[in-house]
Amino acid sequence: MKLCDIGNTNFSFDDGSKFSVENFDISSIDETVHYVSVNHYWEKRLDGEENWINLRSLINYESYYETMGIDRIMCCEAVDNALVIDAGSAITVDLIRDGNHEGGYIYPGFSAMQKTYKNISPALDVSLNFDIDLATMPKNTEDAISFGVIAPLISHIRTLADKLPILITGGDAEKLHNFLPSASVDKTLVFKGMKKITQGLQTC
Amino acid sequence: MKLCDIGNTNFSFDDGSKFSVENFDISSIDETVHYVSVNHYWEKRLDGEENWINLRSLINYESYYETMGIDRIMCCEAVDNALVIDAGSAITVDLIRDGNHEGGYIYPGFSAMQKTYKNISPALDVSLNFDIDLATMPKNTEDAISFGVIAPLISHIRTLADKLPILITGGDAEKLHNFLPSASVDKTLVFKGMKKITQGLQTC
Repeated sequence: MKLCDIGNTNFSFDDGSKFSVENFDISSIDETVHYVSVNHYWEKRLDGEENWINLRSLINYESYYETMGIDRIMCCEAVDNALVIDAGSAITVDLIRDGNHEGGYIYPGFSAMQKTYKNISPALDVSLNFDIDLATMPKNTEDAISFGVIAPLISHIRTLADKLPILITGGDAEKLHNFLPSASVDKTLVFKGMKKITQGLQTC
Repeated sequence: MKLCDIGNTNFSFDDGSKFSVENFDISSIDETVHYVSVNHYWEKRLDGEENWINLRSLINYESYYETMGIDRIMCCEAVDNALVIDAGSAITVDLIRDGNHEGGYIYPGFSAMQKTYKNISPALDVSLNFDIDLATMPKNTEDAISFGVIAPLISHIRTLADKLPILITGGDAEKLHNFLPSASVDKTLVFKGMKKITQGLQTC
């Protein structure tokens, strides 16, 4: 049995393999696949395929909210007490206490933030510097922007986490981890949540 | 004598009047005007006009940095001990202690941030809610985005200001003030800085 997280770009499997959504061939997989999908086209396309089991119906939406991304929900399902950060095209920050989702927020991803500055003014079109020191106020444009992207988010995460463990997942997890050394990076969080949900399915 | 802050959109005078940069007629003003300009076209165009005095040469750039906006510098010149926030198309946050600029950072303005989410995904195209409660973690998309824009910035500003007074200026000053009730809003900060610099000129 395989687990698959279908995004807007890739089919990502729990064995680490990835395939573009553009040319994925579902007939290449005979095994049962338990999947979640934020990709509406593929979720519809897979409906009715016998070996592709959508985990969406297993979610208790009372704990979350209707428009919350299912991949984000799976990451939350993976833990009982943690601040869960998924750093991708957006950065989601979710607070889980005693297995309950207390809420969460959405910050733009680093790549989106860089474009934002460029769109405000060509003078603000710089690369982000992930080596900045957050204890020193910046004195040049590149650092002033990098600090503006990173320092407010890190400050809030530290306050919010308090004594909770911080778990970071997603493509930009390492970049955030630089500034939160006590946090753990776990790129398989979505699959851990899916596995937990799927175990529920198997015992039904 | 008049003071004028020339931006990319308007000529803003200290008497509160504003004129579009598109069709401003410099011959309409006979008085001496002390001005700062982030608008390169107009700064060049006004060079040589006898009654238009550019204050740029009076700035001690050792205290700031070369690419720092001159309007931002003027707001810093206005104070001796404060955290100065200019909330416009970008939100600049500058720390001034004992008359020294200790550094500052640049966060995207609220309007730019809203566009950023929309560009990440049409599902994130929502209006910002400035009535959210920052003490409660959000449970819907609109609040999750509004909180993501506002809470990290406010958290960092509070930590940074510590016991320093917070002064907010710029078009979105009131929106920020909602979340920083102990701060003061001063829309004339840029002119206060210009006045201080100009007094130096007059005693030379």
